[in-house]
This record gives sequence, C-alpha cells and structure tokens, in this order.
Amino acid sequence: MPTTPWVLSPDRCFSGEPGRRALARELYGRVKELPVFSPHGHVPPALLADPSARLGTPAELFIIPDHYILRMLVSQGVSLDQLGVPARDGAVVESDHRAIWQRFAEHFHLFRGTPTGLWLAAELVELFGVEERLTAESARRIYDHLEARLAEPDFTPRALLDRMRIELLATTDAATDSLDEHRRLHTDGLTRVRPTFRPDALLALDAPDWLGQVARLSAVAGVEVVDYRSFIVALEQRRAAFKALGALATDHGVVSPYTAPMSDGEAEALVARALRGEASADDAARFTAHMLIEFARMSCEDGLVMQLHAGSLRNHHHALLSRFGPDKGADIPLATEWTRNLRPLLNAYGADPRFRIILFTLDESSYSRELAPLAGYYPAVLLGPPWWFHDSVNGMRRYFDQVVETAGLYNTAGFNDDTRAFASIPARHDVWRRVSCDWLAGQVVEGLLAEDEAHELAGELAVGLAKRAYRVMEGGAP
Amino acid sequence: MPTTPWVLSPDRCFSGEPGRRALARELYGRVKELPVFSPHGHVPPALLADPSARLGTPAELFIIPDHYILRMLVSQGVSLDQLGVPARDGAVVESDHRAIWQRFAEHFHLFRGTPTGLWLAAELVELFGVEERLTAESARRIYDHLEARLAEPDFTPRALLDRMRIELLATTDAATDSLDEHRRLHTDGLTRVRPTFRPDALLALDAPDWLGQVARLSAVAGVEVVDYRSFIVALEQRRAAFKALGALATDHGVVSPYTAPMSDGEAEALVARALRGEASADDAARFTAHMLIEFARMSCEDGLVMQLHAGSLRNHHHALLSRFGPDKGADIPLATEWTRNLRPLLNAYGADPRFRIILFTLDESSYSRELAPLAGYYPAVLLGPPWWFHDSVNGMRRYFDQVVETAGLYNTAGFNDDTRAFASIPARHDVWRRVSCDWLAGQVVEGLLAEDEAHELAGELAVGLAKRAYRVMEGGAP
Amino acid sequence: MPTTPWVLSPDRCFSGEPGRRALARELYGRVKELPVFSPHGHVPPALLADPSARLGTPAELFIIPDHYILRMLVSQGVSLDQLGVPARDGAVVESDHRAIWQRFAEHFHLFRGTPTGLWLAAELVELFGVEERLTAESARRIYDHLEARLAEPDFTPRALLDRMRIELLATTDAATDSLDEHRRLHTDGLTRVRPTFRPDALLALDAPDWLGQVARLSAVAGVEVVDYRSFIVALEQRRAAFKALGALATDHGVVSPYTAPMSDGEAEALVARALRGEASADDAARFTAHMLIEFARMSCEDGLVMQLHAGSLRNHHHALLSRFGPDKGADIPLATEWTRNLRPLLNAYGADPRFRIILFTLDESSYSRELAPLAGYYPAVLLGPPWWFHDSVNGMRRYFDQVVETAGLYNTAGFNDDTRAFASIPARHDVWRRVSCDWLAGQVVEGLLAEDEAHELAGELAVGLAKRAYRVMEGGAP
Repeated sequence: MPTTPWVLSPDRCFSGEPGRRALARELYGRVKELPVFSPHGHVPPALLADPSARLGTPAELFIIPDHYILRMLVSQGVSLDQLGVPARDGAVVESDHRAIWQRFAEHFHLFRGTPTGLWLAAELVELFGVEERLTAESARRIYDHLEARLAEPDFTPRALLDRMRIELLATTDAATDSLDEHRRLHTDGLTRVRPTFRPDALLALDAPDWLGQVARLSAVAGVEVVDYRSFIVALEQRRAAFKALGALATDHGVVSPYTAPMSDGEAEALVARALRGEASADDAARFTAHMLIEFARMSCEDGLVMQLHAGSLRNHHHALLSRFGPDKGADIPLATEWTRNLRPLLNAYGADPRFRIILFTLDESSYSRELAPLAGYYPAVLLGPPWWFHDSVNGMRRYFDQVVETAGLYNTAGFNDDTRAFASIPARHDVWRRVSCDWLAGQVVEGLLAEDEAHELAGELAVGLAKRAYRVMEGGAP
Repeated sequence: MPTTPWVLSPDRCFSGEPGRRALARELYGRVKELPVFSPHGHVPPALLADPSARLGTPAELFIIPDHYILRMLVSQGVSLDQLGVPARDGAVVESDHRAIWQRFAEHFHLFRGTPTGLWLAAELVELFGVEERLTAESARRIYDHLEARLAEPDFTPRALLDRMRIELLATTDAATDSLDEHRRLHTDGLTRVRPTFRPDALLALDAPDWLGQVARLSAVAGVEVVDYRSFIVALEQRRAAFKALGALATDHGVVSPYTAPMSDGEAEALVARALRGEASADDAARFTAHMLIEFARMSCEDGLVMQLHAGSLRNHHHALLSRFGPDKGADIPLATEWTRNLRPLLNAYGADPRFRIILFTLDESSYSRELAPLAGYYPAVLLGPPWWFHDSVNGMRRYFDQVVETAGLYNTAGFNDDTRAFASIPARHDVWRRVSCDWLAGQVVEGLLAEDEAHELAGELAVGLAKRAYRVMEGGAP
Repeated sequence: MPTTPWVLSPDRCFSGEPGRRALARELYGRVKELPVFSPHGHVPPALLADPSARLGTPAELFIIPDHYILRMLVSQGVSLDQLGVPARDGAVVESDHRAIWQRFAEHFHLFRGTPTGLWLAAELVELFGVEERLTAESARRIYDHLEARLAEPDFTPRALLDRMRIELLATTDAATDSLDEHRRLHTDGLTRVRPTFRPDALLALDAPDWLGQVARLSAVAGVEVVDYRSFIVALEQRRAAFKALGALATDHGVVSPYTAPMSDGEAEALVARALRGEASADDAARFTAHMLIEFARMSCEDGLVMQLHAGSLRNHHHALLSRFGPDKGADIPLATEWTRNLRPLLNAYGADPRFRIILFTLDESSYSRELAPLAGYYPAVLLGPPWWFHDSVNGMRRYFDQVVETAGLYNTAGFNDDTRAFASIPARHDVWRRVSCDWLAGQVVEGLLAEDEAHELAGELAVGLAKRAYRVMEGGAP
C-alpha cells in the first residue's frame, strides 16, 4: 500500500459557497495566530509544575488517557485492556505501546466526520509534522516519528505552553487539593497557569468517602469541620487560597441544576446527620441544591466566576466503572431543565452586579428554549460554549444559530476547550475560530451583519468574550 | 468619529448561493408590497381609537415599552430605572428621554445578530429615513431626526396604519374589556382593527383579584355571575360582543396545554368554592384544563378561531415583577408536552369541521416531535408561526425545516407579528416574507418544488395562509 | 388547462452550491443502481407469497392503505369514508376508485414539500412512466395509465421485486404468525424475503385479547403456555422457527424504552396473575420492561438482531380507532428518555459481543443528547436511520448533523424503508442515497473528509452499513 500524503484543507470548516468562504478566510486570517486563552479545562497541573515532566509515548499521549478515543474504540468492540488502560484490580493489560498504537491506527476510520478525528489530524500534521495518513500500514512509521519528536526539548509540556501560544490555562482542582503544584508554578513564574475551585466531592453527603473528604478539607483549610458553619468557613478559606494562586473561577458539576435554599437550621441539621454518617441520597441532592445558592453568595463576595456544568449521568456502565474507574467514556447526557431549577438561585443573585454564572449544557434542546432566554435577561448569566459532545463543527453551528438571536453574542462566554489532552488545545481552539469566522461570514453574506462588525466580533469570539467572561478584561462590550 | 452611512442590504435574509438568491429575490419582489395581514398582536387599541394619539418620543416609541429591548439591556447591566421604566412604587426613574436614547445607542452593539437589531434597523432606516448608523456619537442627531419625523402628520398612528399598508390588525383584549375603543374604531370606520377575546384572567381562580375579575365580567356582560352556569353564559355573551365588533379569534395563554374535562357537577362545585374565595392553585390548573375544552366547544358554536399560546413561565424574576410589573422581559420558556395534554380536547373537537385551533410553542423540540404530527392529522389543528423568541431568521428556518415535511404548508397559519410595537409591524412581516421566499427558493434549487409552485406558495406564506387560518378567506388550499 | 410535463430534477435533494452538487452527483452516480437492501419494513408477505397477487387499482396501491397519505388528506377535511377506507362497523364507504383517485388528485398540492410528495413523484414518474403532473384535470388520464400498467405482467409484485432490484426484504410478523407465507416463499426459492419476529402483542398483559394471543402462541409453538417458564420456552421456540426461515432480527415497539429486570419469582407471579385475567396496565408496563431485557438475553443466544422502536402514542384519536382501526395516521410521538430507561438492559448486555440492538426514535432531541452518546460507547448499540416522520430530506440532514460527530458513522445502521407501500421502496432508498451523498459531498467541500473516504462511505451508507448491522456482512468497518 503506497503512502498517502496527509494534507489538511486550509479552508476546513468553511462553507463551500465562494463568497462566504472568502470572507471566512479573511476573518480567520486575522485571528488564527492570536494567543490561546483557556479558562476551563482538565490538564493535570503536574504536567507543567514539574519541569522534567514529559508527554510519554504516543500511546500515552494520544490514546490511553483520552475518553473520546476510548469510547469510540470500545463502541466497535475494542476492549480497554487491549488499549492499555490500567485496570483497578491490577489485572494485566496491554503494555506494548506500539501494539496499542497499531490497534488505534487500524480503527482510525471510525473517527471520520468526528471532531476527535479533526483534532487528531491537526495535532499530528500541524503540531507533530506527520506527513502521511495514519493507516494500519503507516502506523509503525508514524509511531517512530512521534517518538522522536516527543524526545526533543521542543516537545516538553513547558516548551509546548509557549509554542502553542497559551496565554492562560486554567486547570480544575478539587477543593481539597493541596495546590502544591500550583504553588510551584507560581514560584517558577508560570502564573498563566491557574487553579479552579471544584467542590463537588464535598457535596456528596451520601458517598462512602464523604467523611474522608471532610477530613481532608479540615486539614488543608486549617479549619476543623464539625458542623455546617465550620464547613462553610473552611470552603471560604479554600476559595481564598485558590484565589491567592490566581484562580478566576469555581466549577460545579451536577446531574441536575436543581437549586433550593435551606434555612440555616435545616442545613445545620443535615450536615450534623451527614457527619454521623447517616445522610441519604436525597439529603445529598437537597444539600447540593442549597449549596449552589451558597456558592453564588460566595461568588458575590470573592468575585470568583461560577461555572455550572449540568446534565451528565456519570458512569452509566457499572462494569466499566468497577473495572477501570470513572472518566473512561461511559457518561451519558440527560434532558436538563433550567427554567424552574435555577429560579431560586437567580432570584437570589441573578441581578447582583458582583455575581457571574456561566452555564454549560449537554441538552441542546435547552439552548433556544431556556438558556438563551435566561442569559438574555439576567445580568449575572452567560452561556458557556458548546460542551463535550457538542464541541464540534455542527455543535458550534447549532449553538450560534440557536443562541445568538435571543441571548446576543455578548451574553456568551467565548470558547474554552475543557480538555485533559494538553497537546490538543490549539486544535480545539482552531476549530472554534474557524467555525465562528465562517458563521460571521455567513451573517455578512446574508446581510445581517456589517463587515466591520464581523471583524470586531471575530476577535471577540477568539479571545475577547472569554477574557471578559472570566473578568481578565473589563466590560461586557468593546 | 465620522458618520457611517446606514445601508441595509436589499438581499438581507437571503442565502449567499447565487442561484438561490436570485430566485429568492424574484419571489420576494412579488410579495414585498402586499398588504399586511396581522391577525394576532398586542397593539393598544387606544393608539388607533383616539385620532389625536401620538407615538411619543423616540424613547417612548422604541425603548420604554419594548420588553425585547429592555431585557437585552438589563442582561448587560443597564437598569430599568436608567431606561425610564415607571416603577410600581413611584420611585423616581430616568425622565430625560434623550439620556435614555443615548444609553440605548451606547449599547446598540448588543443587538448584533438579533431579530430586534434587524427590526430596529428596518424601522429606523426604511420607515423613519435615518441615514447614519446608530452609535453613541450619532445618537443625538438621530434623536433629533426622529423627533422631527414623529411630529409630522404622516407619523400619527392612524396615518401609519395606511402607510404601513395594514389590511387587518387584531389586538388582544381582556374578556372583561369594555371594548369602548373598539366601538369607537368601528364608528370611525376603522373596521380593519379587530378585537381578540382573551379570558385568561378569569381562569386564575386562585389569583387575589379573581373575584374582582368576576365582578367586572358580571358588569360588562350584564349577567350576574353567581355560579358555573352563569359564568359560562357571561363568557358566551362576551364572545358575542367581541364577534359583533369583528373579532376573528380568541387567545389563551397557558403555562402548560393540559386539558381534562370535568363533569358539570365538578365544575359547579369548583366555581362555588372559588366564589367563596377558597380555590387553590391546583383548582385553578384543573379549571383551566377544563375550560380550554369548554372554549373549544364555544368555538364550534360561534366560529371564533381558538389560539393557544403555551409554555411561558411568566415573571421568572420576582424582584422585577414587584418593582416594575409584568411584561418587562423576564418570562422564560419551559419544555412543553402537547401529545398527551391536548388529547382530551382533540378527541372532543379535533375532527369537528366547525372548530379551528392554532397552536404556538416556545419549545422548538416539539415542532417535529408533536406539533407537526398533530397538525398533519387533526382537521381542526393549524400551527402558528415561530413565536416570540423564535420569531427570527433562524427561528423561521428551523420552523420550515422541522414542520413542513410532516404537517405540510397548508396546515400552518402563515405569519403574525404578535407585537406591541406598532411601528415595527412592517419590519417583522418583511423578515418573514424574506425568509419564506429564501426557503422556497432553496426548495426549488434542490429540486423539491417546481418554480410555479414556489411563486404560488410565496403569496400563501405572505398573506394567504393567514387569511385562511383566521377564516377571512375560504378554503384550505388555492 | 394544458398538460404540464412532470419532470423530476436529476439533482433533487442536492445542495445548490455548484462544487458540492457536482461531487454529490458523482458520489450518487456510483451508488444509485446498487441493489436495495431492506432489512425492516411492513410489506405484507402475502403480496409475494402468492404468485397470482396483484397490486390492485391505483387507489388500492397508492391511497387506501397508506397512512401517510390518509393523515394529510384527513388534516384538510377529507374523510376516510370518502377515501374508501373500510369502516369497522361495515358502513358503506366510497367504492368508486376513480372517485377516490380524483379526490386525491384535487388535494395533491398538500404534499408539496413533503417526503410523501417526493416518493409519489418518483413512483409515478420513474416506476410507472407518468409524464404529466397530477392535477384535478389530469387525474383521469393518469388513472387510466396506471391501470394499464398495473395489468401488465411486469407490474406483479414478484416481477417488481426484481425490477426494483431488491436484494433482501424483511417483513414484520407477529410472534404468533403461522409463517405459512414465508414457508411458501422459501419453497419457491424467494429466500431474499425474510420474516421478522415481533412479539409486542404478547407483552400487553392487560389487553382484552391477551389470553387469545397466548392461546395462539401455544398452538403455533407447540408448547402449552401455562406459566412464565413455558411462556419463555414458547417464545424461544418461535424465534427458532423465524430464524429457520431466514429471520435476521426481532422488532419491538414500545411507548417508552423503559427497562427493569424482575426476579424469576416476580415474573412467575405476574404471568400467573395475567393468565387468571387479572393483570393491570401497570403490570403490562413492568412486564414489558422486564421482557425487553429477556429478549436481549435471547438475542445473545440466537444471534437475532434486536430492533427497538420507541415513542409513538398509538391511536391518539379514539373515534378514528373505533371507526377505522389502527394504523390510519393518528399515531403521535412523545418525548422519549433513553439514558435512564435503557441503563438496566445495557448494563446487562450492552457490552456482550453476541448482542446487537438498533434504536429508533421519534424524538429528534434525543439524537445528540442520548442516542449518539449511547451508540458511541456501547458495543451492542447501533442507531437506526431517521424513522417515520423523520424519514425525509431534512430529517436525514438533521440525523447526519446531530448523530455522526458523536456516534461516528460506523455506529449507525444504514437505511431501512420501514414501509407497507411496496412500490415506494426504491423511491425511499433513492432519497436516502441522494441525501447521504449530498451530505458526504458537503463534508468533502468543507475539508472534513477526503474524497476517497467519501466514495467509500457512499457505498457504506447505501448498503454496507445496513448489511453489517443485520449481520449479513461481517465486521464493523471496511
């Protein structure tokens, strides 16, 4: 089988209509090289905190930790054992990374028409200089090529941070995290890497390890948590510690965005019950509903932007969870109700000028029905970009088409990549920039925006809106 | 800052693909000047009943009463006080209309890519002859220009009725309205302005002013309401009074389109309880569910078309309601179930040739799932055009794409503008005509319609379908 | 009125953008003549089992049995009596088939912009050689033409099977069917016609005729059903009988895809209660939820592919059901929850390599939210093509846009026509082939697929994916 050159279209993601394409190209030309502002994601801070950290083998970089890749391969009958994913029970899994890569290459056609395929192509070709298409036949040569690149000093995580033009990178960190790595980054002057405060595990009152979580909170906060009041104080202390290391935001992942306030008395009784190990699943749900409002109150006070990601039913497949743990690709979205659920929180703080909340959904039917109307009224509400399964060419188009007419662009929060896959960050921002420029070009061609407006908005979509959303830049408008 | 001319594209809302655009232009050329048929909206009848009525200042015309504008400005931190919206508590609000206009102009970029922006541009440029773009810098000059225009006799509401080529304009009026203004319009020969019967307030059994509403009903109907039976008689009397003044339709706004019949005995007991001031929220919901079926029965008898608008959770923000009252931009849609909810009503009257019901949704996911299938089967059901948040370029495109293949065009009710903003009526119908012609052109270019069919359907979409839907023109087809 | 020639665009369903259209045409050119693989549908086997069967009059072929046609005509006030649909009470209905055809022709404009209109045009023009448009005026001439064609030997069902290039045709048959017709087809060597096992009626424990169904099951299976255990044995026996006659799959139609396992003891008690005639609606729902998992278990054992069609509320209109029976066009979709409902079934068998389940929805909002994520993870899950109301040009486009990026193409099941209307089969597959080639062309033009990939995928979409899905061809990928 002869080698097929791997050539990416310079016009990818652009409409085929020549007038629109020409303008999209022009708009994109002005923003493609702008620095990357990445205010929400899951890159492990250790990767950057430790100057000697490396990205690992091609299999470790591209396959083993990436749940987008794993799920697609699993869906076509490849097992996680065959992909070298460590089993919880310590069972032997594939350890030959060349064999893992070969298996991946043999199934690479599965990613046709998917954003994962698009990102991988851009990473391999543009970042790593691969020149032939990935196939079963070329797999070995490409592995050798990648291995050689990854050994070069230009491909250490810290070197890539510059080469990928990353201006700011927020990680996501447990509220109980020691922040040692972020402290080291700070000390080393890498202040563009920021922590994000994520307290989810502390709200799961009924989880087997909740008391352990609380013990860690007490220890790391230096506040002994013995009741609801000390729990709140400890959380506030942690938020302050995160903020001192540059945190811009908090992050909250919930199955449903249900909010409902409790009286202090109720909250105290509930936490007392939980501290005795007697909380139920219903208690945990009610506590979360209350604490979301409480976190909104804290955001008003300390200025951290609140991010709310709702609607993922985690660990749908029990066998996968017990064998390989969470975040392996078996999280499935649910229909999500926002209008009634957020009403208590928004009535309390939605018009407070100190408050900002960014909403992320996995239920696209709520874009035009609930989210755009909420963002188009409440001063505190912005809409996050298309999230996870919807971070894709068509996902972005649906977002623009369903959100902007009601919410306006200025009530959106620009883009964030939300990824663990460090080396994929530029590719993800690039897809967003391409699709947003193509969308703006469409608006101009259809007589709905002036060309100068489109130029201005291309910059806003690429970085401005995200900086404003996370309060790195002032003002809600140019 | 130099002046930027404000030039609207003659091809706005048309696809950029040249073949499609050329045909869209041709189709639109034949319908753009057709009279405006506006069978549903919220223009205050006083505006037209009183020959001396004026449109007010530019702020009074464009900003203060328009909840689309208010909500977007509020969402970016402008307060209603600053926009001169009267507070319920009589607090002092901005009274300098030039300052209000200036504030609006400074935030005009918020409306980029929104239908509100599109309507405003068309109104200012095409109706009022503004020639430079609205910016902070040009705001004052444009205010002067508008003020001068509004003082001219050509810009009185009655003069505009002709100039805007309005063939029929339906207002929406409480069932207890005296109809004095409509009587005056009738007397003055302005019979193209029609009332619409809206009895919602009489169904809210648990509302604090329900007994007051009933008292007004008794007075205006000349029927003392003392029980369920006299309540029904009074409503029927009012429908007759509306009809005598040219009403074509009734209108019903509900949170959910839940319908369920009650026996006479149950209804009697319920109304008796309510008349004693003892009705609950649940009673009100059950009563509404019953009365919708009862109104369908009345429609069979008197021929008034029934309009059902479902799915808006009114007054989401309590503080706004208490400070400024309803209809200020804080109504948020809900997911809406139609299939099970309408089943009792449609089983009772859905196949009755005397009955017609037009359904309006804020939940676009129900277009292809529930509404198009219902309209594509029941003889009585038509689908209203994209409503409120979906009255937009993309909202219309989604409507055509999701509705027509299942319901067919002839089970839709054409367009209505549903607006309080009198001077925006032509702009709204113009967007519909443009988008529908572009959609038809797309169908022809893709070989799905013949060109002669598209020409015929352009006229149907512009006015024919609406006239048939509201029984001003006979027949369900050309 | 002069005759208007009926010319179908050779480029119908293709985008108007010239570059995309040219490639769509090229892709389509290579697949348009491929044999038709039809793994799911409702053609009566008698039509093919009996060599003397004929398609009947034009009214019998195109109108009377087609609920797509009936519902649209009913929606505009034509009654089923006027269309010659037999009434259950034996009342006299229209028996003049020329009059029925005339009525249909007079309303043919209703089908503008609908897939039914597109299929009818292709059938009449391409299969039957009609040359002028169907109108009230041409109706009679066209009837004569069709009548003449239908009398020719080329237009017998068996002749059409060849002429329409049908490689495989699956019917849908009650689990209690004698399979006599399929046995005759087998004997006659027509093994490309296959039965499909559909046991729905046996799960409706509360239906008046359930005991009758069980009696038929006992008789046809040769297993006396006296309890849960013998019920299961009888079902397994029937599946084996279907499989022996070439069945590839089972089919299950449910209102909701709710699954929940029962213990053997519970199931035994429930069936015992039902056999005493004491089962409730709730019992039936719980039994269905259990049996779906049980059928998955059987699929693992016998290799029949499980098809699950969920979300239709059958017989929405009681009067229609009582007068004319089911399947007359009054089935209305419901919102459908898949994530939680399928979890028990998928946790039991979703990763079993022997199991395959194909999911069909009428709720498009679940494509990107639930179905694509499920198919993109579970090895057993594939997504069926757009079903019923969504089997249309735009329905297919929404499907591609909302499904592929998350599920990938290889987790879809290709196309099936799901039709009772035998002569419409080629037209339906043709629309799919056209729309899928146009979609692939769009992907190439936008730089998201290589041209060689698009060529390969065009063949997959036309037949390959369907053959793999139903295990007629091996492997999940080329």
